[in-house]
Amino acid sequence: MTRSPLRSRFSPAEIAALWQAADAVADVARPATLAHFRAEGLSADNKASAGFDPVTAADRASEAAMRAVLAQLRPDDAILGEEEEARPGTSGLTWVLDPIDGTRGYLSGTPTWGVLIALADEDGPFLGIIDQPYIGERFRGGLGEARVDGPLGQHALRARPARPLSQAILFSTFPEVGTAEEGAAFRRVATRARLTRYGTDCYAYALLAAGQIDLVIEAGLQPYDVMAPIAVIEAAGGVVTDWQGRPAHQGGRILAASSPELHAEAMALLQG
Amino acid sequence: MTRSPLRSRFSPAEIAALWQAADAVADVARPATLAHFRAEGLSADNKASAGFDPVTAADRASEAAMRAVLAQLRPDDAILGEEEEARPGTSGLTWVLDPIDGTRGYLSGTPTWGVLIALADEDGPFLGIIDQPYIGERFRGGLGEARVDGPLGQHALRARPARPLSQAILFSTFPEVGTAEEGAAFRRVATRARLTRYGTDCYAYALLAAGQIDLVIEAGLQPYDVMAPIAVIEAAGGVVTDWQGRPAHQGGRILAASSPELHAEAMALLQG
Repeated sequence: MTRSPLRSRFSPAEIAALWQAADAVADVARPATLAHFRAEGLSADNKASAGFDPVTAADRASEAAMRAVLAQLRPDDAILGEEEEARPGTSGLTWVLDPIDGTRGYLSGTPTWGVLIALADEDGPFLGIIDQPYIGERFRGGLGEARVDGPLGQHALRARPARPLSQAILFSTFPEVGTAEEGAAFRRVATRARLTRYGTDCYAYALLAAGQIDLVIEAGLQPYDVMAPIAVIEAAGGVVTDWQGRPAHQGGRILAASSPELHAEAMALLQG
Repeated sequence: MTRSPLRSRFSPAEIAALWQAADAVADVARPATLAHFRAEGLSADNKASAGFDPVTAADRASEAAMRAVLAQLRPDDAILGEEEEARPGTSGLTWVLDPIDGTRGYLSGTPTWGVLIALADEDGPFLGIIDQPYIGERFRGGLGEARVDGPLGQHALRARPARPLSQAILFSTFPEVGTAEEGAAFRRVATRARLTRYGTDCYAYALLAAGQIDLVIEAGLQPYDVMAPIAVIEAAGGVVTDWQGRPAHQGGRILAASSPELHAEAMALLQG
């Protein structure tokens, strides 16, 4: 992929400032999301019955807190977030925010939802954070970084070496992947994989970057769902495209793989 | 359910000693299981290729460490574990140990496997721990206790108040639940639930006890898979039986529900 001149001209000081901003954004999202996580009576049916939806409240509070940090530290950059209107910028850089990726997982109390933060230029994302506030785990990738900080300390992120699909672990959020046609394509891969697991939302991409699993296949994603995972996985040596091998940062159908070889094997099956 | 005279005769000091032993057992399992978690190259195919299977190694080391603690603190109690032969006892009490519940989740790096510890008499389990070493989260229930200690501190465990299936969140480990007949029964419930999620192993039972979800339905379980979840969920006010409403501690088909009303609604559908 051709890299924009913009990102290659960053000085070490500028890179440090970008990461400092990204971490500051992730830091404020932690208390904002945890304020409602596992709260008593947290449930989507409150939305109708009591006029208060804690998931949406956490989503909005988290994005507002992240935007406030960026307004202070990066006033010239644009912002694209799930909850509020896009904010234009003048720097050519855009922060892409998903305050809670995996609201259904959040709603269920599982610890595999995440806060997604990416920095992109016109070629796509080149810095990303997948943060899991409950575990206290942050996966960071881009501009020379590829590491996780969590309960076991700090470790480098490195996608697995190539292995055949028959030895691969595949993740997807739901067994019903997208449309009927997309679901059939997914099952052509799943039936040949060693193991298929469901239900992890963005955490699956973090596990791929951490060298724990081999493939993530999903459909119907939004740009803010995929920008951070793309940056983190690419920094760890993995490959993320759409099901035709094209850039995936605008969302849609996602194929993330630990190696180019496995990516090619899965893509051939997805295309039937 | 009739309670054994044995468990009702425990003094406060004996109850404290039993919980102290249970926590000591859970404590030693943490480093034993984490020693191989997310390790480089952790994968089932190592079993064949290199003669070393890190999951089995962690499983065995964890159970051995737990048995050593019990040999010291509770020499008269029996032990039933997944990995080693049953140890007979003279007290009428049996510790039931699953050193890693959810080995496929462990193998994939997800944080929803667990260490299961239960204490049972002839009527079934009456004390249980579901421990998640990576998150540092312990769900404890029985003999007057019902609480979780984790990243958000210490909280009481309380299953949700009754709600209809149409408002309920249902979890199961795999979309293919048991045999074809069992899978069809499961789908009769799943299609009527508000939300169905997969892939959490024993963590789903912990979420039910914590009031986050409403139902867990599984098939083909072993006694050591269900004993601790039963104790934790019953202590939190939930209901666990087999699909016919009978005691479930011998494993098999499991229906765990947050309330008797929801349990009855789901069981009617499971029975077709």
